[in-house]
Amino acid sequence: MCQLLGMNCNVPTDICFSFTGFQKRGGMTDEHRDGWGIAFFEGRGCRVFLDPLPSCNSPVAALVRNYPIRSRNVVAHIRKATQGEVALENTHPFQRELWGRYWLFAHNGNLVDFTPRLGRFLPVGHTDSEAAFCHMLAQLEARHGDTAPEPHVLFDSLCSLAADIGRHGSFNFLLSNGDWLVAHCSTQLAYIVRQAPFSVAHLADEDVSVDFRELTRAQDRVAVVATMPLTDNERWTRIESGCAVLFMDGAPLATRPCPWMQKPDRSEQ
Amino acid sequence: MCQLLGMNCNVPTDICFSFTGFQKRGGMTDEHRDGWGIAFFEGRGCRVFLDPLPSCNSPVAALVRNYPIRSRNVVAHIRKATQGEVALENTHPFQRELWGRYWLFAHNGNLVDFTPRLGRFLPVGHTDSEAAFCHMLAQLEARHGDTAPEPHVLFDSLCSLAADIGRHGSFNFLLSNGDWLVAHCSTQLAYIVRQAPFSVAHLADEDVSVDFRELTRAQDRVAVVATMPLTDNERWTRIESGCAVLFMDGAPLATRPCPWMQKPDRSEQ
Repeated sequence: MCQLLGMNCNVPTDICFSFTGFQKRGGMTDEHRDGWGIAFFEGRGCRVFLDPLPSCNSPVAALVRNYPIRSRNVVAHIRKATQGEVALENTHPFQRELWGRYWLFAHNGNLVDFTPRLGRFLPVGHTDSEAAFCHMLAQLEARHGDTAPEPHVLFDSLCSLAADIGRHGSFNFLLSNGDWLVAHCSTQLAYIVRQAPFSVAHLADEDVSVDFRELTRAQDRVAVVATMPLTDNERWTRIESGCAVLFMDGAPLATRPCPWMQKPDRSEQ
Repeated sequence: MCQLLGMNCNVPTDICFSFTGFQKRGGMTDEHRDGWGIAFFEGRGCRVFLDPLPSCNSPVAALVRNYPIRSRNVVAHIRKATQGEVALENTHPFQRELWGRYWLFAHNGNLVDFTPRLGRFLPVGHTDSEAAFCHMLAQLEARHGDTAPEPHVLFDSLCSLAADIGRHGSFNFLLSNGDWLVAHCSTQLAYIVRQAPFSVAHLADEDVSVDFRELTRAQDRVAVVATMPLTDNERWTRIESGCAVLFMDGAPLATRPCPWMQKPDRSEQ
């Protein structure tokens, strides 16, 4: 299974601490050696760093760890290949433009017999993940036309699409357009919101601590989402299987069950 | 004026030597301090490194210079802002997907009164360059439908589009989909093809030489395109103003004049 990491904040924040632990899972403390990627929104623009090398010995990962890129929305992924060979074009996060904004997507799971009729967004690589992303964007455009709807309306659409696609297998994903971050949990995903009063956090994958009291201001708020909790001395919230969370300004603004997936009609012919 | 750098090769090749000289132009030997970017195709995938910092003191540029990413098609750009503020979303190269392939585009010049009616590809930032790129992709799709035509046919379409857009101002650009590289010269662009017998090249912007005899095999062929020649001891070919060159496998496969631009009908009402 792949590993996901996302961050959504009310002020641009660097992800160096979380990334340090996350990166270890790319071939050192876990088995995911089939490449990795991390993408940062900065305003409307985004920087996407992709590497088919394991993250634990990637020079690009060293850059990201040491160069504090401040961002309000981050999506990262470490890959354990299920569908599609180990190649740059199959490395998450994937990026597309819709409604004049960039969208970033990373998926953890495996979709079986998922062959959507694709429209204007076509996959470049050969993963179920990129196909699902392209399908969702095309469906969003088909539902909402030429203009982006409000985040809550969009979130409802995403939930029903996620539930539909989730019928084909596990579909944990992170999706952001730079304004918000959506986390959909099919099997495993947890988050933490850090806000005042801040304290010390200690990584689960490496003996590294950080005292957020020294790095933050009182009004800062940061939500971090990950496949497995990244720290071992904080209380993470598990996202229910079959639920999605909409994060804005560092807080979980809305949580929705995705009913079609929670009660799949197995008797359907 | 911005600086362009492109590379097209018959085998994956690193661009470290050319990039070393090119990078110096981002705020050290030239005035272009408004960000930079470089994008590498690796197979169908691509890696895009963007930085709104001047390239001469960018940690991302140091990574690119020291980490030999091997690619058959590279597009790089150092920005001197004309339209659009200094921001990540206005930093070239721009990336989109069309026909299941990524396309990368970088522009040097300034388009005046260029307000195309945009279709399915929308700019995220506020540059004339990204608008021109989006317009070209939409027009290519309108002309050729759902399937990519052969490179020569596509090249003809690009030439007529470039000529049309070139009426609005200077429009030097590099465009690649990973199979080929198109260089369109409006005012200033030159290229060199390096192939056997290889020799020593010396940078124009820094006292650095490389002996390509030690780094190449007999069958290697590399075309490098730049706004201004990057070396001072090799013979570069200037692309004629109003011409475009299609590079494949490290060679200039076709050169076309863009007649509308060469003979603009100034008497038109």
